[in-house]
Amino acid sequence: MTLAEAIAAQTPLVQRLLDGLAAIGADPPGITRDAYGRGENEAQALVAAAGDALGLERAIDAGANLSLRWAGTDPSAPPILIGSHLDSVVQGGNFDGAAGVVAGLAAVAALQAAGIRPRMDIEVLALRCEEAVWFGLGLIGSRCLLARLPPGALDLRHARTGLTLAESIAACGGDPQRLRAGTPLRDPARLGAYLEVHIEQAPQLVEAGAPAALCLANPGNLRHPYIRITGEDAHTGLPHRFRRDAALAGADLALGLERLWLEEEAAGRPMAVTIGRFHTPVDRHSLTMVSGRFELSLDLRAYAADHLAALEERLARIVAEVAARRGVRIELGERSAAAPGPMDPGITECFAAAAARAGLPAPRLNSPGSHDANNFAASGVPTGMLLVRNRNGSHNPEEAMETGDLMAAVAILVHWLAERAGAGM
Amino acid sequence: MTLAEAIAAQTPLVQRLLDGLAAIGADPPGITRDAYGRGENEAQALVAAAGDALGLERAIDAGANLSLRWAGTDPSAPPILIGSHLDSVVQGGNFDGAAGVVAGLAAVAALQAAGIRPRMDIEVLALRCEEAVWFGLGLIGSRCLLARLPPGALDLRHARTGLTLAESIAACGGDPQRLRAGTPLRDPARLGAYLEVHIEQAPQLVEAGAPAALCLANPGNLRHPYIRITGEDAHTGLPHRFRRDAALAGADLALGLERLWLEEEAAGRPMAVTIGRFHTPVDRHSLTMVSGRFELSLDLRAYAADHLAALEERLARIVAEVAARRGVRIELGERSAAAPGPMDPGITECFAAAAARAGLPAPRLNSPGSHDANNFAASGVPTGMLLVRNRNGSHNPEEAMETGDLMAAVAILVHWLAERAGAGM
Repeated sequence: MTLAEAIAAQTPLVQRLLDGLAAIGADPPGITRDAYGRGENEAQALVAAAGDALGLERAIDAGANLSLRWAGTDPSAPPILIGSHLDSVVQGGNFDGAAGVVAGLAAVAALQAAGIRPRMDIEVLALRCEEAVWFGLGLIGSRCLLARLPPGALDLRHARTGLTLAESIAACGGDPQRLRAGTPLRDPARLGAYLEVHIEQAPQLVEAGAPAALCLANPGNLRHPYIRITGEDAHTGLPHRFRRDAALAGADLALGLERLWLEEEAAGRPMAVTIGRFHTPVDRHSLTMVSGRFELSLDLRAYAADHLAALEERLARIVAEVAARRGVRIELGERSAAAPGPMDPGITECFAAAAARAGLPAPRLNSPGSHDANNFAASGVPTGMLLVRNRNGSHNPEEAMETGDLMAAVAILVHWLAERAGAGM
Repeated sequence: MTLAEAIAAQTPLVQRLLDGLAAIGADPPGITRDAYGRGENEAQALVAAAGDALGLERAIDAGANLSLRWAGTDPSAPPILIGSHLDSVVQGGNFDGAAGVVAGLAAVAALQAAGIRPRMDIEVLALRCEEAVWFGLGLIGSRCLLARLPPGALDLRHARTGLTLAESIAACGGDPQRLRAGTPLRDPARLGAYLEVHIEQAPQLVEAGAPAALCLANPGNLRHPYIRITGEDAHTGLPHRFRRDAALAGADLALGLERLWLEEEAAGRPMAVTIGRFHTPVDRHSLTMVSGRFELSLDLRAYAADHLAALEERLARIVAEVAARRGVRIELGERSAAAPGPMDPGITECFAAAAARAGLPAPRLNSPGSHDANNFAASGVPTGMLLVRNRNGSHNPEEAMETGDLMAAVAILVHWLAERAGAGM
């Protein structure tokens, strides 16, 4: 069987796994697979059973992540990890995360069907709780694996169960005590590569007409979840020169940040600004009152650490200007940051070569979203990602990936693995 | 006793009435006198008792408004009404409304002390439920009196008691059946004048250093309480060119309306724009989601009917521009409007002459807020208003009027009444 035939032969397996995952998470009109809960647990069991069928060796780590290991011929060769996550947001789609785990299994199955036995171990990883909705913190499985949990993370509470992260991990077979030690569960220096396939969370590949893309980088972010603006409540009749309108200050700040975004993009420095929460206080705002209070959240993304640092300075300047112009106080409040996740250029080039061998177009894109790959990249593991064409974005029920497009990513992955796995054979 | 001495002699009465009203409404840190409820009823009783002491004749009309009549010497002379309201917003201040009723009583007391007996009846009116917070509709007492209730108003429900307006009026001694007839309780053509003293709801008199002002006009308004913007929910990673961000469209709309305001003011056309409710949906907005939904309220004020009509056209153009630029749908939804209340120029000029006789500065101002005077003006009653200096705006506990400033307005009123009342003696 040629490699191309071995890959194509996995389409039924892929479809069966995707359908099985959709049934587990069914929550019309979308899919809900709750992290460290029934949805994610049942999805893990489905994936583990598929691993059994391929003869892979199961393991659960201290973070309750699932690893399915295909032993290589050379125990000393650094393993290659292929991972993604099985949880979803509430009423999200079926593919954000899960498609990448399925792709890993399909790649192993294709290599097996083609009669290729890799030199190094290949592990398919189903990482826990990638979505931030469950604990207000994302990428938890990979944080556990690489000792990148922020202080206090184990005490965060699950949005549905109210259990702490430590309790949730223990309930799923993990070992929170081990995590408190603060050392990685796997030594990053001894990992050969981390590869992740993920649906694109924007329609750039739909626009480009390509089934899959080589990901150049995942964004890092700067977040201020609770920015507060304080002006002065006032009567509708207050003339403009006396007003200290917190809502208009919020509007001013938002559009100022949007202008910054467009200027940066025009200058060839990709980034994104999202202001998801943007509101007058619902317990006191009214038709006939100028609002003295306003709140907003800010998620600012960029692909290079120095760019993020420069943006943070620009943010401070814009905030100071709006506060002065509007006579309001702006408190940025709580701050969190995540480092950008640049992909390994060597892996990306080899992905390009593999795509060429597979006869597939392979545009290069920055990932719109952050992924578990960020943690591996930040820990120094050579990291590569493939993005799969997807209509209608992610985190919503209309998310739409074609199985054929996922198979294109599997093909690039398999051609890469075949080259790399055989390198030392 | 000179007129000036007679006026000055009323300061203790004014202070006692204001203190009594504050005690009735005490709701720390502010004042709450609930309309068609205990607060307003007790305030009416206090005012009625003060009327008794001045020998005024009590009457309750079908809207449960209180009238305190001082009979003139000529029963055929059209009466002069001096009114305002006794209700407040929740935790508002003591003076918004009540100061005007007290000013009416003080004016009558001063005329009596000066030995002036007017030709026409002078009536002090305590109008019901001026504040819109109680039934979602303001100026109710004067609407009842002049048959200006909008359709369905009698079925509106009280924010605290849940009783309908009809039930509330009946419970306070009014006659909702009479109101359903739709004819005025007093024939506007037979009213000589309606005069109102009210605290200014902005700090323009503080800025000008004057105790009181002649009001040129009360604003009319155009209101859209529930404007909805619909774009598309999306992931933080969505590039700008794909986004249909409803929150940024809201920001764009708000700042567009603010620019309109500043342009109009610069062109000498006074107006105001208030966007009191301005928010992403609290049940679904999040740090990591571009919001596809946004809501806002709009209160647009101006002092001339043709100006309001022109502004409504400008609003439609701005809405269409923002919708096109942002790829969103903007539904203005429910609309209500109130006609501007221009003051009678003859009364205003006579107020100016009276102020000169009283030795008081009397700048001319547009009223920041709408008042019961609007309904009298709209019904063709010659209407005049005096605004009293007030720090910190109204509708909040920090509202601050000096009794001495109220006495300046009383002096202008008394000098005007003395001139007018004696005209035919």
